[in-house]
Amino acid sequence: MPGEFDFIDWLRAQRKPSEFVPVPQGDDLAVLKWPAADLLLVGVDQVLDGVHFDSAVHSPRAIGRKVMNRNLSDCAAMACLPAAAVTTAALPRGIGLEYAKELYLGLREAADPFDCVIVGGDTGTWDGKLALTVTILGRSAGITPITRTGAKAGDSIYVTGPLGGSLLGRHMTFEPRINLARTLAATGRVTAMIDLSDGLSRDLGHICRVSGVGAMLDASSIPIHSDAVTVSRDGVSPLDHALSDGEDHELLLTGSLERLGMPVTRIGEVTARSEILLHRDGRAAPLDARGWEHRL
Amino acid sequence: MPGEFDFIDWLRAQRKPSEFVPVPQGDDLAVLKWPAADLLLVGVDQVLDGVHFDSAVHSPRAIGRKVMNRNLSDCAAMACLPAAAVTTAALPRGIGLEYAKELYLGLREAADPFDCVIVGGDTGTWDGKLALTVTILGRSAGITPITRTGAKAGDSIYVTGPLGGSLLGRHMTFEPRINLARTLAATGRVTAMIDLSDGLSRDLGHICRVSGVGAMLDASSIPIHSDAVTVSRDGVSPLDHALSDGEDHELLLTGSLERLGMPVTRIGEVTARSEILLHRDGRAAPLDARGWEHRL
Repeated sequence: MPGEFDFIDWLRAQRKPSEFVPVPQGDDLAVLKWPAADLLLVGVDQVLDGVHFDSAVHSPRAIGRKVMNRNLSDCAAMACLPAAAVTTAALPRGIGLEYAKELYLGLREAADPFDCVIVGGDTGTWDGKLALTVTILGRSAGITPITRTGAKAGDSIYVTGPLGGSLLGRHMTFEPRINLARTLAATGRVTAMIDLSDGLSRDLGHICRVSGVGAMLDASSIPIHSDAVTVSRDGVSPLDHALSDGEDHELLLTGSLERLGMPVTRIGEVTARSEILLHRDGRAAPLDARGWEHRL
Repeated sequence: MPGEFDFIDWLRAQRKPSEFVPVPQGDDLAVLKWPAADLLLVGVDQVLDGVHFDSAVHSPRAIGRKVMNRNLSDCAAMACLPAAAVTTAALPRGIGLEYAKELYLGLREAADPFDCVIVGGDTGTWDGKLALTVTILGRSAGITPITRTGAKAGDSIYVTGPLGGSLLGRHMTFEPRINLARTLAATGRVTAMIDLSDGLSRDLGHICRVSGVGAMLDASSIPIHSDAVTVSRDGVSPLDHALSDGEDHELLLTGSLERLGMPVTRIGEVTARSEILLHRDGRAAPLDARGWEHRL
């Protein structure tokens, strides 16, 4: 039966060179030379079998892609460039070397287009279900990171694409909006940004809370994905799916981008009052934060 | 029932200030200003229920401490200072907010003495077992990182403490040898170093393989922990436990530290032949790499 070190040998052969890694890999830690001019952005996201994917349905290649893309989408949210990643895999015992390789190849398929190198990791087997993590190191690369805290009354609110119904498949196949995020941030007119992972109403709530503002959304402006129409057969309206479904991984941002020709849709306005309202059919009503939250 | 965001609110209140974190936390990624003079070392380790700990036996505080200390021990292996960490927790559904807090407090108990700040993380719940990861960012802070690759024929081989039988309890309570590692590395006389996580015979094999050397160990010099004597009631000799048990988390290093008064024990010598021999009772015999390896 192949073991952890057979996998590590195979991983070593997959390595890409990187300008950030002066010391060859294979040690307890990878050694990077961080560009002096660059801020270092760091974060981690995990995917868990039965929550973020279903190992009975999704291929290991697709699962690997998703966990990397979740982290790349976090880079997009901050308008930084992904530079390096480390990863863990908790593998069900007996899952096999080929399955582990496919997971890794999925990670690489997502990371390679952005020249993001995987510089380390930890693989273990257990009598448990599949769990993967990716920790991403991003660099500011000439653009000041966009946080959630800068939204101010009068700013417009935008999204970068249609929302809702991602569970039909897009939650596994979304593309991180890194290049678009950098283009948007480079205008100097974006005041706050987040990627839509928990759902529009909840993620807008995150921005409003830390920025100390409120929002008025215009229901008729919110772009609704055809997947939201398809899933609305469950009795929940397409609009409600667009407002509440998670894992769209489009960007939600505030600022003033009018007349700049950016591929974004204006969906509302930041307000001074600390509540989120939805304007619909001539009336404004409070919008509850709904969407994904893990229950402890 | 409390949720993920209640936990995140609590976590925010636990934050420590850090010289590395110019931007307030709470975004998709933490923003750090990395010291220009410092190399950045990065790695990740996970702990899995039933493999690295037993949630039916060990407290969440102890489990949190262990996963952080595993990563701090990786910093020791490279002689760097831990600066920041991000962490994930995959929590069994219904485990409760207090349990999650205890895990975090365990992480902090281990990290705080080294001024290592937890700058981000991801918490999820699932119908699975408890799994934690820590990603550590270390800085060189004036000392060139020690890798596994520098061992050369004629070097002495040392360990920093007695080995074997860690399963009796030390695998949960070891202290990362960061300060000692920095003192050793500062002599300029350490050529390779690793922390003993997989077991002496296997970890020495890691050094020998990437350094392109062999080793001759002197059985009578290997410091044997009293725990190895206790567990030897299983019929395996205390020496074999010292050679093969994992998770000692002492340092294994090569170099020439004679007459420097360092608190290390010389256990053998690096040789030019690419095999590891154990000298015992007047005879030298090949030492198989035994110790912990995950089976895929």
